[in-house]
Amino acid sequence: MTGLHIFGISGIPEVTEGADLAEVIVDAATAASTPLQDGDVVVVTSKIVSKAEGRIIELSEVEPSPFAVAWSTTWDKDPAVTEVVLREAKRVVRQLGPVLITETHHGFVCANGGIDASNVGPASGQVVTLLPRDPDASATGIRAAIRSRFGVDVPVVVSDSFGRPWRWGITDVAIGISGMLPLDDLRGVADHDGRVMRSTVRAVADQVASAAELAFGKTTARPAAIVRGAHPTRGEATIKDALIPGDFDLFR
Amino acid sequence: MTGLHIFGISGIPEVTEGADLAEVIVDAATAASTPLQDGDVVVVTSKIVSKAEGRIIELSEVEPSPFAVAWSTTWDKDPAVTEVVLREAKRVVRQLGPVLITETHHGFVCANGGIDASNVGPASGQVVTLLPRDPDASATGIRAAIRSRFGVDVPVVVSDSFGRPWRWGITDVAIGISGMLPLDDLRGVADHDGRVMRSTVRAVADQVASAAELAFGKTTARPAAIVRGAHPTRGEATIKDALIPGDFDLFR
Repeated sequence: MTGLHIFGISGIPEVTEGADLAEVIVDAATAASTPLQDGDVVVVTSKIVSKAEGRIIELSEVEPSPFAVAWSTTWDKDPAVTEVVLREAKRVVRQLGPVLITETHHGFVCANGGIDASNVGPASGQVVTLLPRDPDASATGIRAAIRSRFGVDVPVVVSDSFGRPWRWGITDVAIGISGMLPLDDLRGVADHDGRVMRSTVRAVADQVASAAELAFGKTTARPAAIVRGAHPTRGEATIKDALIPGDFDLFR
Repeated sequence: MTGLHIFGISGIPEVTEGADLAEVIVDAATAASTPLQDGDVVVVTSKIVSKAEGRIIELSEVEPSPFAVAWSTTWDKDPAVTEVVLREAKRVVRQLGPVLITETHHGFVCANGGIDASNVGPASGQVVTLLPRDPDASATGIRAAIRSRFGVDVPVVVSDSFGRPWRWGITDVAIGISGMLPLDDLRGVADHDGRVMRSTVRAVADQVASAAELAFGKTTARPAAIVRGAHPTRGEATIKDALIPGDFDLFR
């Protein structure tokens, strides 16, 4: 029986700036009797990556622009949060009613610039978490640290929860990647019935992130997971390989 | 260690019109020593549901409209396929260059009306598969048959592979559902750090579908899967609960 196992990693201590994520993840997985194996993918929520990288903003230190103040007043939003969202943006994709959807500097299209006010830590005041500055580099750093200290080279995915058009709810997608290709391009390959597939490109990294989310727990008690049996194509890549350039996108 | 197991169900014989999907799925799972358990979710690809329901069109019997002929000629498409896509559509969302994105009669926004020309069967000629007419009813029927004959009441998800804006590649989403809620609404619930989440609604059914896709196999050799440990909220629902009405959608 072909199968996948997905282990949510519990027992990871509160992550603060400078934390060694490779160590806390591997230690927690080992303590839970699920040590990493060849073929595993490690999925790490962007939240703990951002915390470890100090990507946290005190809202009291943010001076909102007149535009941020005006729009926030109209829609009963926090002007400081709006200001941070705009600073994280390369471009506003939609700003309609109270909804603000931007393209971040990374090229991700998402609500509120990927900025999050939940799960930032029990002692924190009015702070928000930004996405990691370079999530591919974050994934590469975690992968390298795991490899050098624990002797296993596993792909690492940094994940975040994004909404999408047409459907309610959020799903986890890959925002950073190391050691695997984000896409599995089957164009030209014969399917189970022998027909050549003309357009099938599987978004493996995003599906791995979504599968991992099911193991994170409803309140993100487990901020990382091991996905075993997904068989991604190994290789060096960037999550930008999975992003549609503006010229080809019908929904900018 | 909290975890999920996802079993791709192999050994399902070629599905033809009138096939008893509940029986072939349960038999194949049992033969593979992974009998269904309470708490499992059964994910079934729309492809075999469509085959069992006879949702297959012979292209030679389709008379394309002048509009379908003209557009298909311009973009080197098969006019009969275009005609079928338009007949399955409630509305054209984008028709730009060779890309045709429609809202189907069900309310799903996807490329080519969810119509598929691959995996339809080795002996078939020029045929295409349509989405099931009422995928919720398909899921409900499979669930009821499993319950009555095998004594276990498991949620059933009918899945299909859809593209999405902004990112290359397809991910599996739920297009029909029975016995579970498609969304897990955490608004008002405290997160791991005690903060109340204001906007978190998890798209559980879609993530279950994406997780299952990783077990279907690259060429859909395994057209159904068991997802164990996802802990969806049980209840009677329709996939329409997960679709954003036009009035609220920014990307129509």
